[in-house]
Amino acid sequence: MKQDIQFVRRDELKTKPDPNSLGFGKYYSDYMFSMDYNVENGWHDPKIVPYEPFMMEPAAMVFHYGQAIFEGLKAYKTGDGTIQLFRPEKNMKRLNDSCDRLCIPQIDEGFLLEAIKQLVIVEKDWIPQGEGTSLYIRPFIFSTEPYLGVRPSHQYKLLVILSPSGAYYGDQLSPVKIYVEEQYVRAVLGGVGHVKTAGNYAASMKAQEIAEENGYAQILWLDAKENKYVEEVGSMNIFFKINGELVTPQLNGSILPGVTRDSVIQLLQYWNVPVRETRVSIEEIFAAHERGELEEVFGAGTAAVISPVGELTWNGHSIVINDKQIGEVSQRLYDAITGIQLGSLEDPFGWTLKIDGVKAK
Amino acid sequence: MKQDIQFVRRDELKTKPDPNSLGFGKYYSDYMFSMDYNVENGWHDPKIVPYEPFMMEPAAMVFHYGQAIFEGLKAYKTGDGTIQLFRPEKNMKRLNDSCDRLCIPQIDEGFLLEAIKQLVIVEKDWIPQGEGTSLYIRPFIFSTEPYLGVRPSHQYKLLVILSPSGAYYGDQLSPVKIYVEEQYVRAVLGGVGHVKTAGNYAASMKAQEIAEENGYAQILWLDAKENKYVEEVGSMNIFFKINGELVTPQLNGSILPGVTRDSVIQLLQYWNVPVRETRVSIEEIFAAHERGELEEVFGAGTAAVISPVGELTWNGHSIVINDKQIGEVSQRLYDAITGIQLGSLEDPFGWTLKIDGVKAK
Repeated sequence: MKQDIQFVRRDELKTKPDPNSLGFGKYYSDYMFSMDYNVENGWHDPKIVPYEPFMMEPAAMVFHYGQAIFEGLKAYKTGDGTIQLFRPEKNMKRLNDSCDRLCIPQIDEGFLLEAIKQLVIVEKDWIPQGEGTSLYIRPFIFSTEPYLGVRPSHQYKLLVILSPSGAYYGDQLSPVKIYVEEQYVRAVLGGVGHVKTAGNYAASMKAQEIAEENGYAQILWLDAKENKYVEEVGSMNIFFKINGELVTPQLNGSILPGVTRDSVIQLLQYWNVPVRETRVSIEEIFAAHERGELEEVFGAGTAAVISPVGELTWNGHSIVINDKQIGEVSQRLYDAITGIQLGSLEDPFGWTLKIDGVKAK
Repeated sequence: MKQDIQFVRRDELKTKPDPNSLGFGKYYSDYMFSMDYNVENGWHDPKIVPYEPFMMEPAAMVFHYGQAIFEGLKAYKTGDGTIQLFRPEKNMKRLNDSCDRLCIPQIDEGFLLEAIKQLVIVEKDWIPQGEGTSLYIRPFIFSTEPYLGVRPSHQYKLLVILSPSGAYYGDQLSPVKIYVEEQYVRAVLGGVGHVKTAGNYAASMKAQEIAEENGYAQILWLDAKENKYVEEVGSMNIFFKINGELVTPQLNGSILPGVTRDSVIQLLQYWNVPVRETRVSIEEIFAAHERGELEEVFGAGTAAVISPVGELTWNGHSIVINDKQIGEVSQRLYDAITGIQLGSLEDPFGWTLKIDGVKAK
């Protein structure tokens, strides 16, 4: 699928937002990448076009039967102006895993990554520079065929949009309050929790909304079968530091295999800090706190990178973690990952992909 | 919310499809109902407009986080030309239940039903007449706000589209082969299985696709926790006739409370046929067959009404039900429900709502 990418120029460029008040996911750049699928031509018509609304049929299947998947990654501008991506091949791979589970035709991972590089080059002036900022890249695919029978769609659209963004939670290293959810569940083995599909997020909003009304920033999800084992927090994976050892729920078919999660594990191993992927119950976590051994808790995800947890509430009991201060390992991981992403630290893992010498046609 | 419904006329009407080859969900009528929601105005701007594509933002939240719900009901033309709906207030109520679970603002059920009546009157020539045909009515709501943070959208669109349809499965009273799914799951308690949201259908396609490749028409879903108890079949509820008694899975928080399911139960009670809502395991079903007591199996849903099951495969074992013939109760229920819907039988329950005297403005 080595197709040329057409470039449709827009008449007038947008005014760029104030880099100090970007927030997350509010602004979109001038251009997006677009590609369509139908049965006759497969994925075809790749092009970089102005970011603008497009036409959808009322009967388009995505509105009814929800075949919609996405990825999230970021482009960074380093101190010397180099543009780089962080482990983008992981996102391409996971996009295809999501396609597979949702019966969406596979994309050519190398071609899509090439398209993303070209799009980022075109939009390089949209990459903000500075602590915590980046150009968020959102590839997504959804069904477009107008049909009301329940079956996989025969037509899809893939778009990649770009959003210059500040830190996801504002001042993201201030520890947050987390509510351990017992009524609602996010995902179950045999379902779609291990892939990035729109329905997972829709299903999570009710519990999140109730938690926020009660003063919590995020939900910690437990497993659906026994309501006992820790799964993930909000839209991040979670880590616990217990008596010097880092523990995170093992990938079990209902947890999202996060790119930041994997990076955290690799960094800890590189530092010779003990880390273990295992099945971990919420009882164990509270028991560790009881023994004075729960030293740190933090979420890990692309949007927020590392998000320390200062307080956990489960079953009517609240525990305060590390005196609501940022833990040593949390801070070290945040500094290391953002340092590698922004090019201020060496990248011993080959995680960053520099973009240069690529020109959009 | 007693607002006037604006009527935007189209220049030219479409050619209507051949009533003998309608299929299901392939054709759409000339007009649709549309209403928008934002925080300032609530649900506003109700109008009947030409069915045609509309503009969506690439960052519209439905493509990313999947807040999308729907309903399905039908309008029928009786022998004397009367137009009627079947228990539409149940669909309006369930639409709001779906709204609640998916954090979508509630709609005024009475107003939406009024709007649907007006739309159906405008489109009365699109209601096919004849065995198994009807005008399928699809109300649906989806999030439209352009924003990439995970939270409920602040903007939504509600549309009602109409599709003249034949029988869902073609010759729908020919018994089908069903595969009892053991790997994939549809829904779990605490999730969204009890409401009609797009993500449920997306999640179900993989298993359905595999089943079809192996010659099965539908999936029978088991519970997610123990992989043991019967939940529902494809997009229908399921009934078993065992030794003269009808048994159906009780509403447990992960099963959809079907309107046809409820109608079947009421009809059986009216006829003094024993019927029980209970937790029923797949083992019990196969054991009943072993004893020669499994007399009938059928699905019940709006699209297909009653869909007899002729063969069930579970864990490598296949059983044939009622010699692959339509069962007596299945046929009686189908005749009674479609008879009431089409006005050829008396309606002792007050299920039908005649539409008359309503004029679109």
